[in-house]
Amino acid sequence: MPKKVITFGEVMMRLSPPGYEKFSQASSFDLVYGGGEANVAISCAYLGMKAAHVTRFPDNALGRAATQFLRKHWLSTEHVIYGDQMLGKYFLEKGAVHRPSEVIYEREGSSFSLIEPSMINWEDVLKDADWFHWTGITPAISEGAYFCCLEAVKAANKMGIPVSGDINSRSNMWKYGKTMQEVIPTLVEHSDVVITSSRGIREMFELDRPNDKFQDLAIELINLFPNINKVVKKTRRTLSASHNQIQGKLWNGKTYLTSNMLNITHIIDRVGTGDAFAAGLIYGLLHYNDAKAIAFASAACALKHTVPGDVNMVSLENVQSLMEGDTSGAIKR
Amino acid sequence: MPKKVITFGEVMMRLSPPGYEKFSQASSFDLVYGGGEANVAISCAYLGMKAAHVTRFPDNALGRAATQFLRKHWLSTEHVIYGDQMLGKYFLEKGAVHRPSEVIYEREGSSFSLIEPSMINWEDVLKDADWFHWTGITPAISEGAYFCCLEAVKAANKMGIPVSGDINSRSNMWKYGKTMQEVIPTLVEHSDVVITSSRGIREMFELDRPNDKFQDLAIELINLFPNINKVVKKTRRTLSASHNQIQGKLWNGKTYLTSNMLNITHIIDRVGTGDAFAAGLIYGLLHYNDAKAIAFASAACALKHTVPGDVNMVSLENVQSLMEGDTSGAIKR
Amino acid sequence: MPKKVITFGEVMMRLSPPGYEKFSQASSFDLVYGGGEANVAISCAYLGMKAAHVTRFPDNALGRAATQFLRKHWLSTEHVIYGDQMLGKYFLEKGAVHRPSEVIYEREGSSFSLIEPSMINWEDVLKDADWFHWTGITPAISEGAYFCCLEAVKAANKMGIPVSGDINSRSNMWKYGKTMQEVIPTLVEHSDVVITSSRGIREMFELDRPNDKFQDLAIELINLFPNINKVVKKTRRTLSASHNQIQGKLWNGKTYLTSNMLNITHIIDRVGTGDAFAAGLIYGLLHYNDAKAIAFASAACALKHTVPGDVNMVSLENVQSLMEGDTSGAIKR
Amino acid sequence: MPKKVITFGEVMMRLSPPGYEKFSQASSFDLVYGGGEANVAISCAYLGMKAAHVTRFPDNALGRAATQFLRKHWLSTEHVIYGDQMLGKYFLEKGAVHRPSEVIYEREGSSFSLIEPSMINWEDVLKDADWFHWTGITPAISEGAYFCCLEAVKAANKMGIPVSGDINSRSNMWKYGKTMQEVIPTLVEHSDVVITSSRGIREMFELDRPNDKFQDLAIELINLFPNINKVVKKTRRTLSASHNQIQGKLWNGKTYLTSNMLNITHIIDRVGTGDAFAAGLIYGLLHYNDAKAIAFASAACALKHTVPGDVNMVSLENVQSLMEGDTSGAIKR
Amino acid sequence: MPKKVITFGEVMMRLSPPGYEKFSQASSFDLVYGGGEANVAISCAYLGMKAAHVTRFPDNALGRAATQFLRKHWLSTEHVIYGDQMLGKYFLEKGAVHRPSEVIYEREGSSFSLIEPSMINWEDVLKDADWFHWTGITPAISEGAYFCCLEAVKAANKMGIPVSGDINSRSNMWKYGKTMQEVIPTLVEHSDVVITSSRGIREMFELDRPNDKFQDLAIELINLFPNINKVVKKTRRTLSASHNQIQGKLWNGKTYLTSNMLNITHIIDRVGTGDAFAAGLIYGLLHYNDAKAIAFASAACALKHTVPGDVNMVSLENVQSLMEGDTSGAIKR
Amino acid sequence: MPKKVITFGEVMMRLSPPGYEKFSQASSFDLVYGGGEANVAISCAYLGMKAAHVTRFPDNALGRAATQFLRKHWLSTEHVIYGDQMLGKYFLEKGAVHRPSEVIYEREGSSFSLIEPSMINWEDVLKDADWFHWTGITPAISEGAYFCCLEAVKAANKMGIPVSGDINSRSNMWKYGKTMQEVIPTLVEHSDVVITSSRGIREMFELDRPNDKFQDLAIELINLFPNINKVVKKTRRTLSASHNQIQGKLWNGKTYLTSNMLNITHIIDRVGTGDAFAAGLIYGLLHYNDAKAIAFASAACALKHTVPGDVNMVSLENVQSLMEGDTSGAIKR
Repeated sequence: MPKKVITFGEVMMRLSPPGYEKFSQASSFDLVYGGGEANVAISCAYLGMKAAHVTRFPDNALGRAATQFLRKHWLSTEHVIYGDQMLGKYFLEKGAVHRPSEVIYEREGSSFSLIEPSMINWEDVLKDADWFHWTGITPAISEGAYFCCLEAVKAANKMGIPVSGDINSRSNMWKYGKTMQEVIPTLVEHSDVVITSSRGIREMFELDRPNDKFQDLAIELINLFPNINKVVKKTRRTLSASHNQIQGKLWNGKTYLTSNMLNITHIIDRVGTGDAFAAGLIYGLLHYNDAKAIAFASAACALKHTVPGDVNMVSLENVQSLMEGDTSGAIKR
Repeated sequence: MPKKVITFGEVMMRLSPPGYEKFSQASSFDLVYGGGEANVAISCAYLGMKAAHVTRFPDNALGRAATQFLRKHWLSTEHVIYGDQMLGKYFLEKGAVHRPSEVIYEREGSSFSLIEPSMINWEDVLKDADWFHWTGITPAISEGAYFCCLEAVKAANKMGIPVSGDINSRSNMWKYGKTMQEVIPTLVEHSDVVITSSRGIREMFELDRPNDKFQDLAIELINLFPNINKVVKKTRRTLSASHNQIQGKLWNGKTYLTSNMLNITHIIDRVGTGDAFAAGLIYGLLHYNDAKAIAFASAACALKHTVPGDVNMVSLENVQSLMEGDTSGAIKR
Repeated sequence: MPKKVITFGEVMMRLSPPGYEKFSQASSFDLVYGGGEANVAISCAYLGMKAAHVTRFPDNALGRAATQFLRKHWLSTEHVIYGDQMLGKYFLEKGAVHRPSEVIYEREGSSFSLIEPSMINWEDVLKDADWFHWTGITPAISEGAYFCCLEAVKAANKMGIPVSGDINSRSNMWKYGKTMQEVIPTLVEHSDVVITSSRGIREMFELDRPNDKFQDLAIELINLFPNINKVVKKTRRTLSASHNQIQGKLWNGKTYLTSNMLNITHIIDRVGTGDAFAAGLIYGLLHYNDAKAIAFASAACALKHTVPGDVNMVSLENVQSLMEGDTSGAIKR
Repeated sequence: MPKKVITFGEVMMRLSPPGYEKFSQASSFDLVYGGGEANVAISCAYLGMKAAHVTRFPDNALGRAATQFLRKHWLSTEHVIYGDQMLGKYFLEKGAVHRPSEVIYEREGSSFSLIEPSMINWEDVLKDADWFHWTGITPAISEGAYFCCLEAVKAANKMGIPVSGDINSRSNMWKYGKTMQEVIPTLVEHSDVVITSSRGIREMFELDRPNDKFQDLAIELINLFPNINKVVKKTRRTLSASHNQIQGKLWNGKTYLTSNMLNITHIIDRVGTGDAFAAGLIYGLLHYNDAKAIAFASAACALKHTVPGDVNMVSLENVQSLMEGDTSGAIKR
Repeated sequence: MPKKVITFGEVMMRLSPPGYEKFSQASSFDLVYGGGEANVAISCAYLGMKAAHVTRFPDNALGRAATQFLRKHWLSTEHVIYGDQMLGKYFLEKGAVHRPSEVIYEREGSSFSLIEPSMINWEDVLKDADWFHWTGITPAISEGAYFCCLEAVKAANKMGIPVSGDINSRSNMWKYGKTMQEVIPTLVEHSDVVITSSRGIREMFELDRPNDKFQDLAIELINLFPNINKVVKKTRRTLSASHNQIQGKLWNGKTYLTSNMLNITHIIDRVGTGDAFAAGLIYGLLHYNDAKAIAFASAACALKHTVPGDVNMVSLENVQSLMEGDTSGAIKR
Repeated sequence: MPKKVITFGEVMMRLSPPGYEKFSQASSFDLVYGGGEANVAISCAYLGMKAAHVTRFPDNALGRAATQFLRKHWLSTEHVIYGDQMLGKYFLEKGAVHRPSEVIYEREGSSFSLIEPSMINWEDVLKDADWFHWTGITPAISEGAYFCCLEAVKAANKMGIPVSGDINSRSNMWKYGKTMQEVIPTLVEHSDVVITSSRGIREMFELDRPNDKFQDLAIELINLFPNINKVVKKTRRTLSASHNQIQGKLWNGKTYLTSNMLNITHIIDRVGTGDAFAAGLIYGLLHYNDAKAIAFASAACALKHTVPGDVNMVSLENVQSLMEGDTSGAIKR
């Protein structure tokens, strides 16, 4: 019986010029949909889990098309709600080598940002769930989104469902009057697994420990939030827009585990690689020990760099094979 | 020395599924830009006039790309201003036969809607101009857009520049507290040429004359606004989404002129055909007598139905040839 | 609470040269999926019903992609089963005017054709269903497919669920040893609604009544199979590959009802128009009286001619509007 | 044993904006190759004949790609010769309804135009041939092309191979010092079948008979050139760029034969329809009596209007079916 | 006078999602054709040789389109035969870095697999040939294919035409009752040149020499089959799906020759690189000494990694330049 | 107030097969426009300068489309002149790794090549200019182009406007009777900045100093032409068609400056990288000291390798960031 994961967050229309064209060259846009939490759910589904995503879309043909994208990629969408008129959007110009990818967001006033508390019946949503996942993007979007997310983690805690939070956020997103330092801890205190970075821990929890390394910061984080079981991090070395290296690190309160460094020499699409890591971690923690879990998460993350779009569509076999060290990418017939 | 036309209004990114795909089928969007007034300016430019469009775009790569579209299609963009972050957008699903085209707008909160009075120096803009054109869409967008438009027509009056207004508007657009019945007349009283319809005249000026035909309504309109020289109308018979008929009508206070009925049997793109009519009318009034002007406008309108995108890119020769009765579309080598 | 329809049959990969290219010109194929019964289910889903399709796909990435197509277009796929290695396929070269469309099938040995009795648990599938639909294609594919279909209609009868059968079949499809004259009647005797044609009735039931019109043949059919409530027919007048006319006819044992003749002057894609008719009929019979039902079915059929792909994706509003006589296809904003 | 046709003339790269885009909109060009005489040869090949085309291409990758296009479409290319550096080109913007298609040629200085007498060994080329075909374009290109063509028809005469000439030409093409009135008759006197029009006969042979109809002009033409067996004409009625009517007429010295008028209501690509007519005529004259030949030629011509590109790729069955009166274009499965 | 090579084997339709899309993302497929032996023939043709391929296609428009692909790429197709209804197919999802490419075959029951002995008149086919090439795929497809291949090599032996066999095969292909160990040696004993690998030699000839290197195995192979002149191998080091290294090795009974290691750092399309090697080897052995031949084969193989599709379309100059050590890929103007 | 640069030279239509297709595979061409000098102007415009390009196009829709490309990419085109009928063209097949890109030119007889002295009013063009740039391509095209260029540099000298010349030329271009050794020096003696290479200096000025390095040759060049202020060179190390390294070098008569070596590991489009270097140099010399100028030029050049098309469309911020050492290409949100 496959495990079931629930995620909650905005899904945006992603519009990108074909290939490596710049915005100034485009006469069409490639169209997919994506959003950190839905990306996690879809990745999990491709790995063989059951997965549902909760979000709010405009009540029009574009909102329905976004829902259809989620359904196509195996999600249950029965808890998607509809209202208002604007679908969040982002435009992506893909870079290469020294040229950065550029992202322009248009999400202010989106249907999702206008979500309000109690629009979602979380007990109904979480019934039968084995995991709930949130990210630091959602509470940054609007107070309504924050409160919905808080309802969700509290309901999950009450129902005994493990909660993971990828707490990365961008301070320039927080425009509705609260800061991430006020908000994120209120969600972390309902979370079992936290995905973050050294800088993330320092900034979010205002720790003045500039010289502490990740392991020490993770220890400190668990001191502050004893509800946390694991603190997890993905290290990225950005050699260029076309070449990155990835390594996963996990502190479980007892041992400090690191994956192999994976060398992604020909990046196809960098977006959503953090979400692929989170999905791999969830799968790993539900099916393996911690050491395999962090290796699995890192392999999933590495593979996402080769899949166009926001979402990691590789199979369980692909991830396992890379986790076990086969980096050859040899043809499968 | 070519005549110069100035237009003012929002330019939107237009995103449409390829061919006859529905929104539910699209995996890419064709990308062009359009907006009623800019469409008029570009049409005029393809007919050989000088043309500049005044608008406000977001200060980012998408705003610049929109500007580049206008420049490519021969407009002067030196009076485009930049600010805020959102480019107005519309999504177009193209219909056929009995299936209607569907349009979804996302323009609330756009950079253009946030324009404010005196952001544009109209005296500078209108220097050397031979015509100014506005439409009933602009004052519907926001109070700021309305006031800018009012500034423009007043400046044009002061500078002795003829003004045309295509007063068509949709009452469901008016959301900022004023109604079209309050606003449109304040612009009409600064206009020399009014493009409208029988229903438009009745609704906009609240005339309770349900049985009056266009000519009578036009006479009444000039009674109300003696500044008006011509009242012009384009009759469309919609046999299906693929087959329309077009006829132009013009009342100049003395004679009532009608063009031939033009039969567009295989529509390629219906959007912007009213703007092509307006552009043809402006060109016609500046270069011909009224009878030829209305025939030219109708021919321009008919030809637009065969050009993909919002904008009429046909040449002066194409329009003249159809105006003179050559409906054969025979190959030019 | 929306009504739920269940369908059963093969879904094929459809590969077609872009636009009007011939097979000899193609350097790529447009890719969709389709099959008569699944087309019916998806049409019903776009009209607002719940719908599930039962089929068998190869257990590989192509079988999963086909499933994803069904999910995207709103079907429940929980009863899809997987096995063997070949996905049925058809190649479509789209014609125009005097040039016929050409279809090449490659479905021999497909996973669906290898289905066997009792692979499907019909009681489970039909639980909560309000309608079951089959076509004359399925029993032609293989004996296994025939027996599964027979299981389905018997289960539906037992559970009191209405059954419709579109009995059109092509005699050159029947290669496994049985003829359509042997097989189709065994399914018709479990059906409440039969969609057919005059020629279909004569051929399938070997009636030697060359001069009888549809109404008389329908009367005779109900005489033979008193379980039938309605005999329904779609008349197509093929003026050219680009221009057809459609009219629906229905005999319900008491009155003979005909829809308006609908004139499809610019065909986009003719494939699946019969399935759109069947879906419209099912929706109509579940929600309207017979006269409106046949009008609704005809309108749905007409609209499908304007939608690319096998499937009718138009909305309930579109069909209702055409059913009520608005043939203008005027833009919806 | 299939009959073999030989053609001679320039083949150009054809570059056209996708769909109905204007030149001002294109960001890519669709690429095919075409030229009147090669179009005839390829049409004949699709009808089941053997066919070879003789031409001269630049000695580079583009010349080889053009050769590959001919090979792909079944021609023998063993007599293609190579030299110089420029491939003739034409740009096609496809019109619709009242908007004309526009063609821009760039063929001056092409490798073909630099061909010189005796570069082709016609006895070798024509060995085993059953027909030779030329058009009035070739002698217009350059004196070298003219002389090669003259060599060809003389060799064909000597070898007893029937010769057809489509003598249409455009006087603005003749730039090398000779006029079409000087040149065309020198080729016609070696031709058995002449394809032309009333205007063509009047202009080319300077007949001052403004009121004579085609039959009378054809009679006069055979008086002047007793070597001619048939004078053939294709009448086109251009209702619009999207809708034409076609009828064939043939005078064989004894009877005056006309085909049905064929009504092409949805044109896909008008280019090359005259060449399709010529190919149908050659096939018809080699396989049928004159009445069927002119009907076959007209049907072939009508069908070409529905095939993208320069070349008629329809099958013998398609043409026969239309020739026999089936205008329905009903799907073939 | 160019040398002529004859090849024999199945040609499949290859369908692949654009770019790096996964099967789950595709809404179209890129379409080419390929098959090991035809790939060799086409490569040889691009190098300047004459080449003909012998195969069997379905007797329909798809079989003709496949033939047209071969003709376009310079092959003689006069010995292609037609029958039955299914074209073999394979689906290719292109991988990158750690993500493997995935191939799904659908070739069971194809027209080629139903070929039978004496359908091909090999004496006629091989007349004027300078080389015959087969691969270990063909005898795996069906007993009919095996026997045809055996007829071919025997005929070649009788006519004194050199024979090369690329004996790589996949044991999971052998489903008709014979094993590759039974069959391959019966073809090898009619072959002059064998392309294989160390594992291939061990498996195919059941040699229990796990520690022997290629040279020793090659010596042993020639001991077993004294008819063999050269045993050749291509070593591939698969660093990732995007980065491979290639080196050729050749034992001619006297000397052991190895090429430089070629470093393919940015793979465009890996499929068909072995066939490019075989073609390079055939060209090399016919035009150079053994040392240059193996260098030429390796260079051809390396270059194929940069050409989309199954087939190596590079020129003789390209291969010679790389063979001589110019790895710079500097622009040619 | 932005600085203004003027450039002069041919702009060609660039036609290239999509992706990595070879000419033999293309069924469409991607369409952009480019030419060394216009590329420089557009790059400068994207960096924030004002820029105008002077050229001559055919007086037809293609000439207008080329102009529209320049306008879209921010150039002033008021000094473009029109005449004759042929647009220069080049075809680009993009290589990878060991496979060279191939370029085929078709520019003989182009409208630009037929330009004649005094067609351009240079005093008018250069009014308000801050820089004039020419390349060694222009004087190679025709004597008329050479004389126009000479007029331009003389006018610039007279008006005190700095002149840069990128003197690279290909001796096989010079066909009108003059050699580059005769012509280039006559332009260099009116230039302040010369971009060249060691080989360029040796060849162009016939210096027999095979062992001199760039700095020594640059010193000698300034000895010969004391008007020169800077001699600049871009060193390219071509590891493969996919991987190059770039370093800029500058001699200003006093110091010898070199930039960092930039490592472009995944080339997207190599064409126009020299022009991007020249544009970066012009921007740098106008805004920075020499050391920063050469670093800026090298960074601009490196970034161009990642932009499809001829033209560098990166922003000032992109170049500055790379100039300052950020090679990470990390996503900008």
